Amino acid sequence: MPPAHPFDDDKLREECGVFGVVGVTDAANFVALGLHALQHRGQEAGGIVSYHPDKGGFNSARRFGYVRDNFTKQSLMETLPGSLAIGHVRYSTAGSKGQTAIRDVQPFFGEFSMGGAAIAHNGNITNANALRRELIERGSIFQSSSDSECIIHLMARSLQRDIPSRMEDALRRVEGAFSVVAMTRTKLIGVRDPLGVRPLVLGRIGDGWCLSSETCALDIIGAEYVREIEPGEMVVITQENGVESQHPFRPQKSRFCIFEHVYFSRPDSIIGGRSVYETRRQIGVELAREAPVEADLVCPVPDSGTPAAIGYAAESGIPFGLGITRNQYMGRTFIEPTEQIRNMGVRLKLNVNRALIRDKRVILVDDSVVRGTTSRKIKEMILDAGAAEVHFRIASPPTAWPCFYGVDTPQREMLLAATMSEDEMCAHLGVDSLKFISLDGLYRAVGESGGRDPARPQYCDACFSGEYPVEPADMIKQGFKLKAAE
Amino acid sequence: MPPAHPFDDDKLREECGVFGVVGVTDAANFVALGLHALQHRGQEAGGIVSYHPDKGGFNSARRFGYVRDNFTKQSLMETLPGSLAIGHVRYSTAGSKGQTAIRDVQPFFGEFSMGGAAIAHNGNITNANALRRELIERGSIFQSSSDSECIIHLMARSLQRDIPSRMEDALRRVEGAFSVVAMTRTKLIGVRDPLGVRPLVLGRIGDGWCLSSETCALDIIGAEYVREIEPGEMVVITQENGVESQHPFRPQKSRFCIFEHVYFSRPDSIIGGRSVYETRRQIGVELAREAPVEADLVCPVPDSGTPAAIGYAAESGIPFGLGITRNQYMGRTFIEPTEQIRNMGVRLKLNVNRALIRDKRVILVDDSVVRGTTSRKIKEMILDAGAAEVHFRIASPPTAWPCFYGVDTPQREMLLAATMSEDEMCAHLGVDSLKFISLDGLYRAVGESGGRDPARPQYCDACFSGEYPVEPADMIKQGFKLKAAE
Amino acid sequence: MPPAHPFDDDKLREECGVFGVVGVTDAANFVALGLHALQHRGQEAGGIVSYHPDKGGFNSARRFGYVRDNFTKQSLMETLPGSLAIGHVRYSTAGSKGQTAIRDVQPFFGEFSMGGAAIAHNGNITNANALRRELIERGSIFQSSSDSECIIHLMARSLQRDIPSRMEDALRRVEGAFSVVAMTRTKLIGVRDPLGVRPLVLGRIGDGWCLSSETCALDIIGAEYVREIEPGEMVVITQENGVESQHPFRPQKSRFCIFEHVYFSRPDSIIGGRSVYETRRQIGVELAREAPVEADLVCPVPDSGTPAAIGYAAESGIPFGLGITRNQYMGRTFIEPTEQIRNMGVRLKLNVNRALIRDKRVILVDDSVVRGTTSRKIKEMILDAGAAEVHFRIASPPTAWPCFYGVDTPQREMLLAATMSEDEMCAHLGVDSLKFISLDGLYRAVGESGGRDPARPQYCDACFSGEYPVEPADMIKQGFKLKAAE
Amino acid sequence: MPPAHPFDDDKLREECGVFGVVGVTDAANFVALGLHALQHRGQEAGGIVSYHPDKGGFNSARRFGYVRDNFTKQSLMETLPGSLAIGHVRYSTAGSKGQTAIRDVQPFFGEFSMGGAAIAHNGNITNANALRRELIERGSIFQSSSDSECIIHLMARSLQRDIPSRMEDALRRVEGAFSVVAMTRTKLIGVRDPLGVRPLVLGRIGDGWCLSSETCALDIIGAEYVREIEPGEMVVITQENGVESQHPFRPQKSRFCIFEHVYFSRPDSIIGGRSVYETRRQIGVELAREAPVEADLVCPVPDSGTPAAIGYAAESGIPFGLGITRNQYMGRTFIEPTEQIRNMGVRLKLNVNRALIRDKRVILVDDSVVRGTTSRKIKEMILDAGAAEVHFRIASPPTAWPCFYGVDTPQREMLLAATMSEDEMCAHLGVDSLKFISLDGLYRAVGESGGRDPARPQYCDACFSGEYPVEPADMIKQGFKLKAAE
Repeated sequence: MPPAHPFDDDKLREECGVFGVVGVTDAANFVALGLHALQHRGQEAGGIVSYHPDKGGFNSARRFGYVRDNFTKQSLMETLPGSLAIGHVRYSTAGSKGQTAIRDVQPFFGEFSMGGAAIAHNGNITNANALRRELIERGSIFQSSSDSECIIHLMARSLQRDIPSRMEDALRRVEGAFSVVAMTRTKLIGVRDPLGVRPLVLGRIGDGWCLSSETCALDIIGAEYVREIEPGEMVVITQENGVESQHPFRPQKSRFCIFEHVYFSRPDSIIGGRSVYETRRQIGVELAREAPVEADLVCPVPDSGTPAAIGYAAESGIPFGLGITRNQYMGRTFIEPTEQIRNMGVRLKLNVNRALIRDKRVILVDDSVVRGTTSRKIKEMILDAGAAEVHFRIASPPTAWPCFYGVDTPQREMLLAATMSEDEMCAHLGVDSLKFISLDGLYRAVGESGGRDPARPQYCDACFSGEYPVEPADMIKQGFKLKAAE
Repeated sequence: MPPAHPFDDDKLREECGVFGVVGVTDAANFVALGLHALQHRGQEAGGIVSYHPDKGGFNSARRFGYVRDNFTKQSLMETLPGSLAIGHVRYSTAGSKGQTAIRDVQPFFGEFSMGGAAIAHNGNITNANALRRELIERGSIFQSSSDSECIIHLMARSLQRDIPSRMEDALRRVEGAFSVVAMTRTKLIGVRDPLGVRPLVLGRIGDGWCLSSETCALDIIGAEYVREIEPGEMVVITQENGVESQHPFRPQKSRFCIFEHVYFSRPDSIIGGRSVYETRRQIGVELAREAPVEADLVCPVPDSGTPAAIGYAAESGIPFGLGITRNQYMGRTFIEPTEQIRNMGVRLKLNVNRALIRDKRVILVDDSVVRGTTSRKIKEMILDAGAAEVHFRIASPPTAWPCFYGVDTPQREMLLAATMSEDEMCAHLGVDSLKFISLDGLYRAVGESGGRDPARPQYCDACFSGEYPVEPADMIKQGFKLKAAE
Repeated sequence: MPPAHPFDDDKLREECGVFGVVGVTDAANFVALGLHALQHRGQEAGGIVSYHPDKGGFNSARRFGYVRDNFTKQSLMETLPGSLAIGHVRYSTAGSKGQTAIRDVQPFFGEFSMGGAAIAHNGNITNANALRRELIERGSIFQSSSDSECIIHLMARSLQRDIPSRMEDALRRVEGAFSVVAMTRTKLIGVRDPLGVRPLVLGRIGDGWCLSSETCALDIIGAEYVREIEPGEMVVITQENGVESQHPFRPQKSRFCIFEHVYFSRPDSIIGGRSVYETRRQIGVELAREAPVEADLVCPVPDSGTPAAIGYAAESGIPFGLGITRNQYMGRTFIEPTEQIRNMGVRLKLNVNRALIRDKRVILVDDSVVRGTTSRKIKEMILDAGAAEVHFRIASPPTAWPCFYGVDTPQREMLLAATMSEDEMCAHLGVDSLKFISLDGLYRAVGESGGRDPARPQYCDACFSGEYPVEPADMIKQGFKLKAAE
Repeated sequence: MPPAHPFDDDKLREECGVFGVVGVTDAANFVALGLHALQHRGQEAGGIVSYHPDKGGFNSARRFGYVRDNFTKQSLMETLPGSLAIGHVRYSTAGSKGQTAIRDVQPFFGEFSMGGAAIAHNGNITNANALRRELIERGSIFQSSSDSECIIHLMARSLQRDIPSRMEDALRRVEGAFSVVAMTRTKLIGVRDPLGVRPLVLGRIGDGWCLSSETCALDIIGAEYVREIEPGEMVVITQENGVESQHPFRPQKSRFCIFEHVYFSRPDSIIGGRSVYETRRQIGVELAREAPVEADLVCPVPDSGTPAAIGYAAESGIPFGLGITRNQYMGRTFIEPTEQIRNMGVRLKLNVNRALIRDKRVILVDDSVVRGTTSRKIKEMILDAGAAEVHFRIASPPTAWPCFYGVDTPQREMLLAATMSEDEMCAHLGVDSLKFISLDGLYRAVGESGGRDPARPQYCDACFSGEYPVEPADMIKQGFKLKAAE
């Protein structure tokens, strides 16, 4: 959950959350609540499309900013009537906020001869550049810079006579990771790519149904969790016929993103039948076993490191304590006003609990190290407060490879673990010790008691291993080198 | 820290935070940062006054909303030049937001014949109505409905020839609780009432000085904690002469607000030489000793119950776990869109970690019970998630009396503990057990090993005991009955 | 000039103004000024697209509201760099403001394989519905509800290898009225339909060139008027090669909109070599000859009736006087606050100069009568002020037919002149006399000394005559009946 | 009416308009309409106070910007309930907009022991500095930098037991020009200074009464004009007892501001029984007699010069024509975007009707010359358009002295007529001739057939004559030299 972390710019960021519902009055209200619960998956902007046969057909609203600041106003929500709606929350990619236009905000909508369709996409299309070039050549006009817009144009050009079939046509042309929630005038549609990289779950609410990136969004509307959409599955849901399932793609072994367990998903969500909170706590337990150290205090880096810190403390017997306080009024817009203040080491987001830290040997438990800039600052704050020793324990293996499946990662050379060994990182950060959980340890914590199967890994762990389950075609064309090629 | 709590409307609320600084370039920037760190003491509005001899003299800005949303804009901060500035954050009193005008937002400013002065007041004047009537009778024109405005009018009418002396004159007429930060063209002034009910600390920043409600605001600007302003002390600070101390009031035994330890102050602040976090953890320890129960999980009500829950878990040996997740994107403005959704029990602010709670005997640790409405809802959520038993442990004694010294409390008849015994409350809430810490236990946790001295209590604990150290004159005139009178 | 008129809802409204410039630094600034001068042609929204090879290529901004309120902000204009830019101002169609989305605001942009193009369209495509259906059938995705979007999709599908040729392809498929200003990365393009229904002029500014709906927008930027773009002409302008002219359409006799002379164009513009002000004054002269009446005062209905009133007064010898004062602070948003006030006959926009009107026989000169609602209200105000007689003289023939070429007219049955004779209208309005200028008189005032040529009319006067020079195909399909069919 | 003029910064500006009403439902709505009609008297800001016994007593709203943009919103107007309300519109003084705070916006309010009172003041207090110093010395706290605030503090300190008597007390201490509209919980009060410099009229609306700066604001709400408040008169109006009149001041010969006739008042108002429009037209007639010239066209400088131009044309027999077109979409915020464009001589506000002006000998009729900057620019535009000759005729005598009675004038040395003779001004402006109406001619036009009585002038004409009917005490202390002292 990125915003929980003190320095947003040194975290990997999920790029999307999707939600859809059919068969309830004022469906857009439910979508707004669902997106609010998925806000951690995308904070830059959000959009909702609803359909009402008598009130303007398809209606749409897209806004920059938090769901709670936009999709809660009576005046806006009244423009989104109907019993069928989908929505999307979106992250900006690093540093490009200035260039992001509202037209890049999903859902995307297309009017076809048999009626309109709207789609919301979580993931990333690895052959989007090639597809886009081909579509423009044939006369399609793109309205956004988003890879996801390819899907709706492919659908527009399909010769199929119904929209679900057009979506099948379109998604068969698409490579990469995708969990898609879409709608027509009467149907709610959900699809996951054959590897099932991104999550998508099905819920039941009254007489209606909903689709969501995570289960925490089912809880907020009081929906019952039914099951995950399977990798490669497409569900077409109507109020009349309920859930109809198809498997339009060639079957493959699933490769769910293991980082969803480590960081992206909310701790109160359930993934693959496992509590995210419990998995993270178990990572802490494994980490305590793999990398014990004598110390006085186990202190989480708030808030994402907390469950692992609880696990580490419980397994090690070392007391757990909140040595770092997060300022809960911190928005994303606080600009440090002057050079002078910036240089004085202002703590806008975090403050160390000096009375607790002083003279203690402190184990800091964090979820990951990306560039390492954050870890350095936290170490300094802890030492300034008089800690005797600082030991970092990281609840994920070294992040050494970028993700091309819907996560915003820096270029490879910016990743600390891409250029340094664990010992070099320890020296670079200037801490008394630094240990990452092993890849096998992480697999054990997610329930694979035998650890990772190197021949056929159970998860997508490309960010740690460099083994990409789908070839990143566009990136290779732009010069990215696979591990084998190095 | 109120906003940390899921249901804002069932908490006591501090009404103010004050901050001032002298002797630094662009002092208003420091005040903005200090107020940001004190935001938990007042979220409705904030104001800053600065002084620059060549740029318009006294300049002022007052705004509704968070500090970070107003006092971070370059364009606004440039209107507040100078090396001397004070500021204030303010709570609305319950339900009166609609009537609060910007003119009620402090600091208040008055132009006297010897120059201007601005004041920011934390506390409450218990004879404000009488003073106001008298001042109006003599021709003063009030601009706000705030009790604090009396101080500046009393100063305007003083016959003293310098502003600090006028402030002494004024504050000698005032009854109740006050920590005041004030400024003239050259002086930063700090005063605490003789009982020292509200906090005020002194910090050193470079060659300058600052005054703050809490130490956490010193940390954010990198200031060094010097000492507390003493009860009944007045400090006049200039860049040339540093801190000059006076004691203009008749000496009294101090009665600091014990609820600052329980709830109002930030856990990373230090009060009376004690870490607030550590005190709260210790309350949990005391509570585990006073009110043990067999259970599987100690779960804090986030976020304010967390330190006490850690203490309870450590002392009892029962595992600590985050069974309730707070939605960190929850603002104060999310309006539940429809009746339908409201009735479905939407969880906008909190979600229960079902996988962790299911079939467990859960101890919920919360900081206080006011009306009890919140506690009921949380209990229901926990039971819905399948808890086997629910035991409430409260980190403060029953809140049975309103506060008249700067805290927003409901009328006495709205306080659950004013009308019910502990057992009746347990039945009312429908939980398996409910225990509050004893008043003596609370005193022990704040370091009074012998507990409360009933003859001369060490703290103001009127909200628990009904013993008011200053007679609430205005309220009595309006019909409020003291304990003795009941 | 619509807003000059007291009751906006009873006027015909031009739907667009277009402006483009090439060869000047910060071209968007010039476009903003040009659109400001064309604001009377469209007040609801405006947009500008500019191109800079090194600063983001094509940049675009579209906003609701006045040009002066949006396109004057330094922060916005800096996002529109480059020496080539086009812009558009737009009217809402009656009552549909709520449904107009920002995506309906022009210019429209399309990325083709040989680069991007933006277009701004003044006029109306009479076969847009049929084109749209066909394009969707083939996989085009429309982003707006605007008829103008067809043009960019037709261009995207053209097999031509350069953009001007694609535009020719596209416009040959289009029926109706169009003056188009478009741009590529290096070219400014202007086109008028074969009948030349809507105006478009060419100007020279320094080393650069500009295209504008009217000459008044040349004046504001200090550009020199060169000539009109001819009916059926297409000009492609580059800084290197200057103006290159083509005539891609089958030649036809021109049919310029005569209502531009009567009302739409600004009085300080020059159309077809004639001063609009002078033409309107001449209409007043003709009207005084055709429809004299004994009276004491010639009073214009401000502001659009003023030139004709001056002409009427001069020709008749009756004194000219400002009997009606317009409130110049009247915006379009003043909402009459209460039923009570509305019923009291509040004059928000106009006030009668009682001292001038009392006991006079007044000739009111107005430019047109649409529904007649305005004329009734004005008559009542004049009588309330004590006028002895009220005589209406109208500077256009009876408006009896809707326009389908880019003007917002009510449905035919709403037009007063569609259902009543001149005498019936006089009785309906309750005035002492009512006279419209004759169609021949109007033609004489625009310089056709022989009047209208019924065989081959020199102008489009369909709104008066019901003779439509281009068959309104979409409308006929929707049930509209031509004069012949009645 | 300032905004009608093309270059706002070269006009004298009235500083206020006042309006009040009692005895109507939702009185604040009427005040909003009245202030809208008085907007020309003050455009920077406006305020309304209303009273309702059961809905919060006195309620107030003060806003920057036009009345129509603020006091038309249902949400705001609902906060101003009651049958008694007053309001004020205000000009900024030259160049100080940045420093004007909302607290300078009237009405001012004071709570006294016998209840509250609000006042709105049009005029200027010439001994305000001395009064302010004295009041501060005694303990009054000023909230604004406005001279008008003295009145409410003087009232607060009066020993009288009712508010009208306190107002008498206060106004007897005040020197200068004032038309005051005030209210208590039940009374609407109106006062004019003994000279009656500023206007104030009484109107009847249904069973209620209203007070207004001008009659045009009676028209907008459908009120009947009753009479002017007399110089030195105070009226106290209640719904029960109607209008009660007193004359609390020592009687003096009245000296109404003659510039109200020339420029400030709206042409559709009636002042002293005379139509302002007719007076201005008559000024044109006098001017044609005093300063004839052979020419082809009489052209008003829009819009304020129009009535005089009509009069000049009628008297001289030279045709009247609109040679200059004002852009009616010109707001006050259009910022000329770049140096480049500014230097090109952009015409943002005005455009010359070239076809009409070319080769003509043009008489330009303007209302006044202040700094002369405007006149130069207009002359250049007219010559650029090809005029053969340019003759300026000014509908007021040379403005050579600043006003200290409520009009914003530049310092004396900035007034063109303070340093140049008519001939020098003619040369400075570079026109073929320049003539001002004589002071006697102006008096004749306002109905004084014998011209000005030099011994006892009938009007205040200090801006032309330098004869100040009330000594400007504060200004003299600041160094201003009276005519006699020069």
